Amino acid sequence: MIGFTGARVDRADNLRLDEARLAELAAHEGARMMQLDGLDPVVDADGRLAWTAVASEGERIFLGLAGDVPLFAPLVRGDPLQRGNAFALLGSMPAEDAALWGGARSLIGWHGRHMFCGACGSATAPFRGGWGRRCGGCGADHFPRVDPVVIMLAEHEGRVLLARQPQYPPRRYSALAGFVEPGESVEEAVAREIREEAGIEVRNVRYVASQPWPFPGQLMMACVAEALSSELTLDLTELEHGFWASREEVAAALAGAPDASFLAPPRFAIAHSLLRHWVEQERR
Amino acid sequence: MIGFTGARVDRADNLRLDEARLAELAAHEGARMMQLDGLDPVVDADGRLAWTAVASEGERIFLGLAGDVPLFAPLVRGDPLQRGNAFALLGSMPAEDAALWGGARSLIGWHGRHMFCGACGSATAPFRGGWGRRCGGCGADHFPRVDPVVIMLAEHEGRVLLARQPQYPPRRYSALAGFVEPGESVEEAVAREIREEAGIEVRNVRYVASQPWPFPGQLMMACVAEALSSELTLDLTELEHGFWASREEVAAALAGAPDASFLAPPRFAIAHSLLRHWVEQERR
Repeated sequence: MIGFTGARVDRADNLRLDEARLAELAAHEGARMMQLDGLDPVVDADGRLAWTAVASEGERIFLGLAGDVPLFAPLVRGDPLQRGNAFALLGSMPAEDAALWGGARSLIGWHGRHMFCGACGSATAPFRGGWGRRCGGCGADHFPRVDPVVIMLAEHEGRVLLARQPQYPPRRYSALAGFVEPGESVEEAVAREIREEAGIEVRNVRYVASQPWPFPGQLMMACVAEALSSELTLDLTELEHGFWASREEVAAALAGAPDASFLAPPRFAIAHSLLRHWVEQERR
Repeated sequence: MIGFTGARVDRADNLRLDEARLAELAAHEGARMMQLDGLDPVVDADGRLAWTAVASEGERIFLGLAGDVPLFAPLVRGDPLQRGNAFALLGSMPAEDAALWGGARSLIGWHGRHMFCGACGSATAPFRGGWGRRCGGCGADHFPRVDPVVIMLAEHEGRVLLARQPQYPPRRYSALAGFVEPGESVEEAVAREIREEAGIEVRNVRYVASQPWPFPGQLMMACVAEALSSELTLDLTELEHGFWASREEVAAALAGAPDASFLAPPRFAIAHSLLRHWVEQERR
C-alpha cells in the first residue's frame, strides 16, 4: 500500500451541500470526531486513530461515511507548515488511518490559509461541510487546494539519481522532486526539474504511481525517466549532495541494512514506493 | 502532440528572484511581450502568437528565454473563468504557441484571484518575475495554483464510457473528469469520480498522459480504468447523458466523419488524445 492511500470512507460529496442532513449526521449517536493534537494525529493503545463523540459546538469538517458511521474532524487552528510529532506516529499507523488523517490534515490546514478572499480581501466562511469557503464580501467560492508535485528517478545504466537536501536526517537520500507549474504537463515538469536540479537531460518519462502528501497538501506523482548522461551539475541552493545508486545499494537501503550506503525515505513516502518499484519491477 | 504541451521556452527559474537581471532582460532590444486581448491570444497573419516590444511601464510576468530572446506577458486584468474567443483560435495555432499562451493565461488569471492574502486579508504584490505574490501585511508568500484533475475512460467489454454535460456543444461527448481532492491519489480520484458520476466501480486504473489546461489552470491527468459493470446510474446534476462507445464509433468521431454517432472533443483537449490512445494503443 502506498502511503496515505486506502482510506476506507465514502466521501459522500452529494451530502456536502445539505446542511440539514449534515447536522443530522453529526447529531447521530454513532457519529465520530477525529481526535487531533494541533494538526497531529492522536492514537489509541493499538496505534489506531482515536475518535470521540461529536461535540455540538465548534466548526467541523465532514469526512464522509465509514459504512453507517458519519466521520467528522474538528476545524482547529494550526500551522500546516509545522510537522509536529506526526512522523513518529505514522511509522506504525495502519495505512487506512494515515490516509484518513492525512486528508483531514490537508483540508484543515487549507482553511487556515484561506480565511480571507484572494479576490477581494473579505472574510470567508466554511461551506460544503468544510470542503470549501465562501466569501462574505464578493461571494466568490473557494475550493481546497491540492498542489501537484512530480517526484522522479532519473535512470542511467542501471543506476538512479538520489540526492539529499540539507534539512534531511543524516544519511537520508531521496528522489528529486518539484512543484508542477502552470503551463506544463507532468512529463515536462519531470524533465525541467531534473534539468534544473541536476543538469541532466532526460527522455521517456514514465508515470509509476501517486500519493497525497499532507505536509501541507501535495499530490505526489512518481515517475521514472531515462537520463541521457550522468555528469551531475547540482543546484546547490536546493541540494547538498547527489549520487547514482545501484540496485544493490537501493535494495540494501530499503531493507534497512546497517551497512547500506544511505538511509531510505520512510515507508509512508512515495519515494520509498518508487524505489521499491524500481528495484522490483524495472529490471530490463 | 498533446494540447498545451511543447512550449519552446527555458523557464529560467533561477532568474526569477533577480529583479535587476529581469529588468535588464526586459530592457533588452530583442525582448518580446506577448500580445493579449483580455486573456485571449492575439495571432498574426500566419496564425502564430503575436509579440510586441516590451513597454517600460506596466506589470509583467517573465515567461523565460526562447534561445536568447527574453519573453514576457503583460499582467492584465481579466476574468479567467470567461473563455472569450480562445477556442476558435486554438484550433489552428501551433502546439508550442498554444502551450506558451496557456501557461501565461493560467498565471495571469491566478494573479487576479490572489490580489489579497488568504491568511490575513492584506493586499499582495507580485514577486519572482510574476511567479508568486507576497503579502504586504503578514509577509506570507503565495505561489501559482495548479488544480490536478483526473479525466478518464471506464472500459467495459471493448467499449468506453462517454458522457455529455448540458453546456457542451450539440452532439459533443467526452470522458468523465473531476478534481482530485485532498487525501486521495490519482487512482483513487479516478475510481471515486466514476462511482459518483456513473455509479460504476472500476479497478486497474492506468495513467496514460497529462496536459495543462488553461481554463483557468488545471493539470489534466488522463487514465483508463476497467469497469466491473456497465449499468449506468448517471449523476444528472452534472451529466445530461452517457453511453458506451465502441472503437468504431470513437474512431469515426475522431476522424470527424459526418455520420459519426457523436462529436469528439477538440484536438487540443487531452480527452481527444486519450480517445486516440485508446483506439490506437489499447487493442488487447
